[in-house]
Amino acid sequence: MEAKFQKLKTRMLEVNDISSAAGLLYWDQSTYMPPGGAAARGRQMATLSRLSHEKFVDPAVGKLLDELVPYEESLDYDSDEASMLRVTRRDYERATKIPSTFLAEVTSHTSESYQVWTEARPANDFERVRPYLEKTLDYSRQAAEFFPGYEHIADPFIESSDYGMKASEVSRVFAELREALVPLVSTITSQTPADDSCLHQYFPEADQLTFGLEVAKQFGYDMNRGRQDKTHHPFMTKFSLGDVRITTRTKENFLGDALFSTLHETGHALYEQGIRMDFEGTPLAGGTSAGVHESQSRLWENIVGRSKGFWTHYYPQLQKAFPEQLGSVPLDAFYRAINKVERSLIRTNADEVTYNLHVMLRFDFELQMLEGKLEIRDLPEAWRERFQADFGIVPPDDKDGVLQDVHWYYSLIGGGFQGYTLGNILGAQFFATALEAAPEIPSEIENGTFDTLHTWLKDNLYQYGSKYTAPEIVERATGSPLSIEPYMAYLRTKYGELYNLGN
Amino acid sequence: MEAKFQKLKTRMLEVNDISSAAGLLYWDQSTYMPPGGAAARGRQMATLSRLSHEKFVDPAVGKLLDELVPYEESLDYDSDEASMLRVTRRDYERATKIPSTFLAEVTSHTSESYQVWTEARPANDFERVRPYLEKTLDYSRQAAEFFPGYEHIADPFIESSDYGMKASEVSRVFAELREALVPLVSTITSQTPADDSCLHQYFPEADQLTFGLEVAKQFGYDMNRGRQDKTHHPFMTKFSLGDVRITTRTKENFLGDALFSTLHETGHALYEQGIRMDFEGTPLAGGTSAGVHESQSRLWENIVGRSKGFWTHYYPQLQKAFPEQLGSVPLDAFYRAINKVERSLIRTNADEVTYNLHVMLRFDFELQMLEGKLEIRDLPEAWRERFQADFGIVPPDDKDGVLQDVHWYYSLIGGGFQGYTLGNILGAQFFATALEAAPEIPSEIENGTFDTLHTWLKDNLYQYGSKYTAPEIVERATGSPLSIEPYMAYLRTKYGELYNLGN
Repeated sequence: MEAKFQKLKTRMLEVNDISSAAGLLYWDQSTYMPPGGAAARGRQMATLSRLSHEKFVDPAVGKLLDELVPYEESLDYDSDEASMLRVTRRDYERATKIPSTFLAEVTSHTSESYQVWTEARPANDFERVRPYLEKTLDYSRQAAEFFPGYEHIADPFIESSDYGMKASEVSRVFAELREALVPLVSTITSQTPADDSCLHQYFPEADQLTFGLEVAKQFGYDMNRGRQDKTHHPFMTKFSLGDVRITTRTKENFLGDALFSTLHETGHALYEQGIRMDFEGTPLAGGTSAGVHESQSRLWENIVGRSKGFWTHYYPQLQKAFPEQLGSVPLDAFYRAINKVERSLIRTNADEVTYNLHVMLRFDFELQMLEGKLEIRDLPEAWRERFQADFGIVPPDDKDGVLQDVHWYYSLIGGGFQGYTLGNILGAQFFATALEAAPEIPSEIENGTFDTLHTWLKDNLYQYGSKYTAPEIVERATGSPLSIEPYMAYLRTKYGELYNLGN
Repeated sequence: MEAKFQKLKTRMLEVNDISSAAGLLYWDQSTYMPPGGAAARGRQMATLSRLSHEKFVDPAVGKLLDELVPYEESLDYDSDEASMLRVTRRDYERATKIPSTFLAEVTSHTSESYQVWTEARPANDFERVRPYLEKTLDYSRQAAEFFPGYEHIADPFIESSDYGMKASEVSRVFAELREALVPLVSTITSQTPADDSCLHQYFPEADQLTFGLEVAKQFGYDMNRGRQDKTHHPFMTKFSLGDVRITTRTKENFLGDALFSTLHETGHALYEQGIRMDFEGTPLAGGTSAGVHESQSRLWENIVGRSKGFWTHYYPQLQKAFPEQLGSVPLDAFYRAINKVERSLIRTNADEVTYNLHVMLRFDFELQMLEGKLEIRDLPEAWRERFQADFGIVPPDDKDGVLQDVHWYYSLIGGGFQGYTLGNILGAQFFATALEAAPEIPSEIENGTFDTLHTWLKDNLYQYGSKYTAPEIVERATGSPLSIEPYMAYLRTKYGELYNLGN
C-alpha cells in the first residue's frame, strides 16, 4: 500500500512540477518577456496546462486512488496521508467529470472571448462581446450538467473555488451581510466625504516600492523565498514553497495603489509561505479556498494595513519617505484619507465598506444567469438598475459597468466572485480570534511588530495548506462556523469612530 | 502522408514547448529566482527534461518517421519538409540509442559530480573529484558503445554537438592550426606585452551595461524579441524565435568582461533571431552546430568587436561614457589593450590568439581519455606538462589547471570543446566570404553600421537554422569546405600589424 501511495505522490509531484512551470511562463510573460515572445508563449502555456491536466486525469491515477481506498480508511482523518488522499480524490473526481474535448472547446472559446473583451471594454461596446458572453453562459450551463445532483446550478462552480460552500449558504450569508451593510453605507455616505487629496500627489515610483516592500518584510514576508516585480495587474504566484512571489504596480500620482496592493499580495504570500515545508509538491501545498486566501490578503491589507495602530507606527516613516508630500499632513487626516468611503463605480478601487456590495451584485447576477432568469442581452440594463438601487448612482457607461471585470469574459460564469466577500468576513473572524488568544496584538502593531499575529495565523491556518476544507479550518481555528458578526463589529467600530456614528 | 507529417510536426512542437519551458526555468534560476527556490527548481527542470525526452523517444514518433520515409524520398532534399524529416530522424535515432535508464543514471551521477566540483575547485582539491571523474569516464566509454561502428570512440560525442565532423577530421584541422599558431604565439609573446591598465579601472556597472546594449542593438539585436539580464555566467537562451535573450555580468574594475561577453552573446542571439520565423517550434529552429554557433559569437565579439575599424567609430562614444577613465587614453593604446596577447592560465579569459591552444589541449585529452591512453589519476600532471609545452608556463595549482572548466564535471567527457576553435576558424571564413561579396563592409563598420554584414549572414547562414549540417552550410555559404586559411590570414594581418611582425 505504501508503495502505491508513493506512486501516487510521485505522479502528483509531476503534475505539480508541470503546473509550476506553466506558472513561471505566466509570471515571465507578465514581467520580463519581450513583446515578440507573446505568440509562442500562449502556445507554450497551453501545452503545459494540457500536459499537467492529462497527467492528472490519467485513468492510472483513478486506479491508484481506488486501490488506496482501504489504506485511506485505515488512517486517521487528520493524518497527512489520509488528507493527501482525500484532497487528491476530490480534485480527481472533479477533474475527470469534465470531458477533455469539452474543456478544450471552452478554452478556445474563452481565449477568443477574452481577446474581444480587451478591445470591447475601452470601446465601451457591450454588443461586441454579447454573442461571446451568450456562448460562455451556454457552456457554463452545460458544464454544470457534468455534476448531476447539484442543489443549485451554481454549486459546481462555487465548490471549485470555495469547496464546502453552496449557493444557498452563500446567499444566506450575503443576505444577512447586505441587511447590515446597506444602512451603514447610507449613514456614512450621507456625511461629507473624507478628503483624500493628500494621496493624489506625485510620489516617485522607487520610493513607493521601497516603502511597500519594507512593510511586507516587516509583516514576515520571507525574501529568501520571495521577491517582488512590477506587472500591469498585481498578483501572487508560487512555484514552490521556497519561491512565492508577489507583483505590484505603481501610480506616481496616487499613493494608495502600490502600497495597499503590495500589502494585499503580501497577505496571499504569507499564507503560501506559511504552509508546512514537507507538503512541498503535494496537493496539500496550497491555500484551501478562494475565500480563505482572500481572508489573508484582506486581513493584512485592511485590518492591519489600514488601521490606526499600524499608521501610528508607520506614518512618521512614510512622512520621512515623502516629506514634501506628507510632511504637513497630520496622521488623522492621512488615516481618514486611506479609509475614505464612497459610492464608486469600480469594484477593484472600492473601499472596504462598499466593496461587498459590488461583489454581491455580481454573485447574484451569476446565479440568475445560470438559472436562466437573467438574459445576457438584459445584463447592462440590469446592472444599471441594481447599481442605482445599491449605490444610488448609475454608471454612465458599460465600460465602468458590466464590462469592468475580466471574470466572465475569460472563463466560465459562476463562482468567480463570492470568495472576495467571504474573504472579508473570514479575515475579521480570524483576526478577532487571534486577538482573543493574544490581546497584545494591537499594541504590537502600534510598535510595528507583527510576530504574534503572524505566528498565530501560521499555527492555526497557514501551516495546514489544503489539508482541511474552508469550513473545517474556520471551525478549527476560530471555534465557530463562518459568521458575519466579527466583520460587522470591526466595520462598526472602525467606521463608527471615523464617522462619529455614535456606536 | 501530409496528415502524418502534420502529426509529427505537432509532436515536435510539443517537445519544443516543454524544452522551452525547461529553458525558462533555467533562465529564471540564473536571474531572478530567490535562493529558497533552488531545491524545487532542480526537480522541476529534471521533470520537464524527462518529459520532453519521453515525448520525443516515444515509439509513436519512430513509427511516424518510418511511415514517412516514402514521403521524404518523394521530396526535394532542399525542401523544408524533407529537411525537417531528415533532422528529426537524425535526432530521433541518436536519442533512442541511449536507454533512458542509462541516461537517468548518468544524470544523477553528473549532478552529484557537479556539486562536488563546485566545492573541490575553490579548495584546489582534485582528489575529491577524481573518483567522480573516473566514473564519468567509465560512463562516457559505455555511452559510446551505444553507437557501434564509430571510427573513433569520441565520434558519437563530436557528432552530437558538431554533426558532420569526426575526431579524425577535427584532429587533422587542429594539427594544421597548431602548426601555424604556435610560432605566431611565440613571436608575439616574446615581445613586450601590451599595456592594458586602461581597462583595469573603475567603470560603473550601469554605464557598462548601457554601452554594451547600445552596440548590441546597433549590431542588429532586435530588442522586441530579446532582452539582457545579469547572471553569474553570461549565456544566450531562446524560448521561441520571438524571444531570444542574452545575459551578461559586469566587473566594475575591468571594462573588458561585460563589454565583450555582451558582444559574444549578441552574436549567438543574432544567429537565432535570424532564423526563418516559419521554422518556429520545429527542429529546424536552432543553430546547426556548436562550431557554427560559436563562429557567430566570435565573429561579432572579435572580428568586428575588437577591430580597429569598429573602435574608430565607437571609441569616442566610449570615451564620452567614461571620460575620466579613458579621456586621455588614445585609440591606439586602447586598441592594443583590448587585443593584448599573453600566455595565461584560464581558457575563458584567453585572447583570440592563444585561446585555441587551450581548446586543443582539452580536445586532445578528451580523445586520449576516451581511448584509455590517459588515466584520470594522471590528468593533473599531464595538464601541467602539456601546458608547459604549449604555453611555456606551468599552472601553480589544479584550481586554475585541470579543475577550471565545468565541462567534464557536469556532463560526459567528449565533444565538449572542439566547437570553440571550429567557431574561430569558421567565423573568419564566413567573414572573409562576406567581404568578397560586399567589400564595403569594413568602411560601414568604421561608420558604426553593420547592416550589410548582418544581412549577408542572415541570407547565407542564419535563416536556415538547422536545415543544413555545418559542413553543408559552410560549403553553401563560402563555396569551400572548412579551411583554416582565412582565420590564419586574419590573425596574421591583425597581429602582424599590432606587433610589427612585418607580414
